Amino acid sequence: MDDYPQALERLIDALQTLPTVGPKSAARLAFHILQAPTSEVEALASSLLETRERIHPCPTCFHLTDLEICSICSDPRRDATILCVVGQPKDAFAIERTREFRGKYHILQGLINPIEGITAERLRVRELHQRVREEPIREVILATDPTVSGEATALYLNRELEDLVQVTRLASGVAVGSDLEYTDEVTLGRALRGRRAL
Amino acid sequence: MDDYPQALERLIDALQTLPTVGPKSAARLAFHILQAPTSEVEALASSLLETRERIHPCPTCFHLTDLEICSICSDPRRDATILCVVGQPKDAFAIERTREFRGKYHILQGLINPIEGITAERLRVRELHQRVREEPIREVILATDPTVSGEATALYLNRELEDLVQVTRLASGVAVGSDLEYTDEVTLGRALRGRRAL
Repeated sequence: MDDYPQALERLIDALQTLPTVGPKSAARLAFHILQAPTSEVEALASSLLETRERIHPCPTCFHLTDLEICSICSDPRRDATILCVVGQPKDAFAIERTREFRGKYHILQGLINPIEGITAERLRVRELHQRVREEPIREVILATDPTVSGEATALYLNRELEDLVQVTRLASGVAVGSDLEYTDEVTLGRALRGRRAL
Repeated sequence: MDDYPQALERLIDALQTLPTVGPKSAARLAFHILQAPTSEVEALASSLLETRERIHPCPTCFHLTDLEICSICSDPRRDATILCVVGQPKDAFAIERTREFRGKYHILQGLINPIEGITAERLRVRELHQRVREEPIREVILATDPTVSGEATALYLNRELEDLVQVTRLASGVAVGSDLEYTDEVTLGRALRGRRAL
């Protein structure tokens, strides 16, 4: 039985370290890479390394940036009195895409998860406290995921911060464009409890 | 609106050149790469380039190899009298995985496809002719895909080679483990016509 040549096998193995890439997709990607234009493959290889070198957490809000201070923290047009707290940079990018939020962010770099041993001390909670005390923040929006970990983190932060500042939570309810029939009971129940006058 | 930092954007763009990777999976892969161990990302980047440098077509059969002559062509235990003709290296790897074939290969590097302008002259047909004339080949198995292009290529090669050597084609029929009810009519019709005594 003849296997893949070694160099190809190594590429297939390396591709399989990526999420959602199993042996079959790794092989398909590898065959593509063998036939792709050299410039494309070189761009991919160099951007893999370059991204790791250049991108780092902002020292203030811990969002991802390739600048010394991230472009949101350093933007004087952003409202410094409203702080949106999220678990991961990708959550902040998602909120930015709505174009509805003009305040600043604080990235916790995780969510409380006792099973995985992630306690509040391992998150950027101390830094959040410090910002709430030192910056002119009037409102903290807890925008952690509507999951068990996200809810636990929001409950914890609310207890910590409610005496210092106004604390709010993202509305929870049915997704726009979704089908009531296929909405899970917990979400639908919450949408009912959170109903608003029209 | 704040977009991704430039270096991250470049990585997301580069990942999107891969097949089946759209903007959302590219972003998910990029976030994974930012958090993955450095050694893993370096291994991926270097294997991308290394594979391109080391892997090339075997000068005899055009299978992929990192050796001067591929390990199948240079293996004296392989039967040099049977030649299996396929479109792409991945087809030869698939046949090797069956462990049923002990002959040698010839990779056409494509299939005849007039719509895409791929004629027999652009494939390794001339080299196949030469091998049939010069090597002790008794049988050529046409193992091109059971698709329109694969069938057209097989018909063409049969016409070219039938006076020189015995030409056979992979059996076509119902897939093992499949459901007759869901087998398409063409495949089922072919399985009927190709029925064999038990």
